[in-house]
Amino acid sequence: MQNLRASDIREILKITQRPDIISFAGGLPASEVLPAREMAPMARDLLNSDGIRALQYAPTEGLLDLREVISAQLRRSFSIERTPDDVLVVGGSQQGLDLAGKVFLDEGDVVLCESPTYLGAISAFRAYQAEFAEVLTDEEGMVPSDLEDRLRTMDRVKIIYVVPDFQNPSGRRWSVERRRAVADLAARFGVPVIEDAPYANLCYDGEPLPPVASFDRAGLVILLGTFSKILAPGLRIGWVTAEKRLLQPFVLAKQGADLQTSSLTQLLAARFFADHDVDAHIARLCEVYHARRDAMLRAMDEFFPEEISFTRPAGGLFLWVELPEDMDARRLLEQSLEEKVAFVPGECFYPGGGHLNTLRLNFSAMPEDLITEGIRRLGRVFSEALAPVGVGASTP
Amino acid sequence: MQNLRASDIREILKITQRPDIISFAGGLPASEVLPAREMAPMARDLLNSDGIRALQYAPTEGLLDLREVISAQLRRSFSIERTPDDVLVVGGSQQGLDLAGKVFLDEGDVVLCESPTYLGAISAFRAYQAEFAEVLTDEEGMVPSDLEDRLRTMDRVKIIYVVPDFQNPSGRRWSVERRRAVADLAARFGVPVIEDAPYANLCYDGEPLPPVASFDRAGLVILLGTFSKILAPGLRIGWVTAEKRLLQPFVLAKQGADLQTSSLTQLLAARFFADHDVDAHIARLCEVYHARRDAMLRAMDEFFPEEISFTRPAGGLFLWVELPEDMDARRLLEQSLEEKVAFVPGECFYPGGGHLNTLRLNFSAMPEDLITEGIRRLGRVFSEALAPVGVGASTP
Repeated sequence: MQNLRASDIREILKITQRPDIISFAGGLPASEVLPAREMAPMARDLLNSDGIRALQYAPTEGLLDLREVISAQLRRSFSIERTPDDVLVVGGSQQGLDLAGKVFLDEGDVVLCESPTYLGAISAFRAYQAEFAEVLTDEEGMVPSDLEDRLRTMDRVKIIYVVPDFQNPSGRRWSVERRRAVADLAARFGVPVIEDAPYANLCYDGEPLPPVASFDRAGLVILLGTFSKILAPGLRIGWVTAEKRLLQPFVLAKQGADLQTSSLTQLLAARFFADHDVDAHIARLCEVYHARRDAMLRAMDEFFPEEISFTRPAGGLFLWVELPEDMDARRLLEQSLEEKVAFVPGECFYPGGGHLNTLRLNFSAMPEDLITEGIRRLGRVFSEALAPVGVGASTP
Repeated sequence: MQNLRASDIREILKITQRPDIISFAGGLPASEVLPAREMAPMARDLLNSDGIRALQYAPTEGLLDLREVISAQLRRSFSIERTPDDVLVVGGSQQGLDLAGKVFLDEGDVVLCESPTYLGAISAFRAYQAEFAEVLTDEEGMVPSDLEDRLRTMDRVKIIYVVPDFQNPSGRRWSVERRRAVADLAARFGVPVIEDAPYANLCYDGEPLPPVASFDRAGLVILLGTFSKILAPGLRIGWVTAEKRLLQPFVLAKQGADLQTSSLTQLLAARFFADHDVDAHIARLCEVYHARRDAMLRAMDEFFPEEISFTRPAGGLFLWVELPEDMDARRLLEQSLEEKVAFVPGECFYPGGGHLNTLRLNFSAMPEDLITEGIRRLGRVFSEALAPVGVGASTP
């Protein structure tokens, strides 16, 4: 229990829930596109016609209705063939990470991860007292030669953890070559890969790329997904898919962790897929997020001083900012909060700490006008911090 | 990952889902009393009027609406005063057990438990590689002198785990004196108590007794409850309440485990409490279960050979059977399944194994006529097993 950093973020996020704050700190889907109106009559009909299944216990693996939907999604969105029996329903993909920790990690075991990496994975794996080694990462993903070095030289590597599509926090998307390379290295060294793909469907430029799992010839890639970004996080529905030999320990771990995911939310999600054009729904989400990303990038181009660099993600919910080396994003956050703008300093996304000059911005939760205004204010804060010391104070 | 026993039970429960089986094996609430019809319009109204909150992310602690309901329940049903801030919403009380394991247990740590004890707790704590020590237990609960001996002599005791109300599997209810004694011993030795109270509201004879938590002067008792037995297990709503100092690590562990419990099911449960007479609902459940328990006991009195003893629980969902020492309930299960009746052999409820002559019967899931018929068949299987070898075969 030493995820103090996660709890620091919790405190930041609490402040940012105040209604007068322009928050780029969270990772919330846009409330405007949550399908509450569509789900309202569905939930009623479901409880009337299939109420016992919705309210009674269900198998740990998940209800077949939903596992069939996920199997179909895997074919359409990820181009991989998995039967419903190859799927475990979990309470959001965060639970998939926790179960991976429970299945694979003991005290002192090593997780190889990107640098930076997803904070929730750090929290989940730290709870099992694992160590992290950050693999050299560039704009195409993990650098295979560095991954190979570490696999060859490090003891007790139990998991390679990757987020190849529009990573939280960096927005980075891996190239196809890197995806294949990681699958190949995992096979050569016999180390399981946890591929976390919450943002794979949120692609705004070009076509989706095949997952690492599609290059898996050794049955070592465990793919995690979620309905939180394409449907609604409040349902708490995610999934794990892997070869049976690897999936079975996840099922047992899930049984000990919480018996099963809510029967009601499973059936509601399955019904939404049955009754709605989900592709059209996702296309609408992408349209909204595409516009918000563009608004943020436009404002950054206009208001950010040129010493500051940032990523231009082709999808997902986040982009990543690098300040000049001597600047400290934690201190700038204090000043930004005075201007009523919030973000997350980047340090917490590095298991080894450091990188104080980085920060994460979320572009999905705020409308375009507030994005522009928030970035304008942030630009002012950053410009003032960059100005030579004493200039402001010496003005009479 | 060595809960092979839990997976054996999973296999038994799968067989017992066949519709022609009279199953006393599961622990399901009666499907007839699940409030699906009442919840159907509520779910629709909730999604129409409060849809964003129902579908968006929520705080890890749980939504205030529901924590207020739980705080009120704690006052009315458990006679303890806790504010909503003292409550963490979890995905069923099984998750409370998992989080307790994550917070308190490392490899080789010791859990003191009743003998027998709840199988789900064995699974949850074993995942953290804990050891178990079964405290001497009689019909009034844990024997305080034995508990004290173990607390004095054993190293690395991190948790005392108790189910004082109508325990799964035994149906046993602890006396008030034993409840007080455990709280006192925990305080003297500074060891946290996990008090698991899923059945506390299901009391058919006499009045509910005060929880161990009500005798806690040292702030060491962590009380777990669930809406699975009084409302619907498919919602996956449970709660943990403890002093802030102990609750805070549970909140952080929950964040790493699955971020939060479903916003939708939280609001639906809260609304059910706001719009319905929950006491009347629970009274109706108790009426149904009371009648089923009586039907089972009546049939056992009539059809079970007198060499077989069993508990007469004043509440809950289960009763406990002891066969003569040389009989093996696992073997009798095979014969019972041929007669299309299922139960759970008792061995899996003992962390140390053994006790092959015990078994658990559930009386909540089957209507009274099937209970009577199932017990009649079980009585025949047991009588045949008791008959001197060869008697049947020697008849021409």
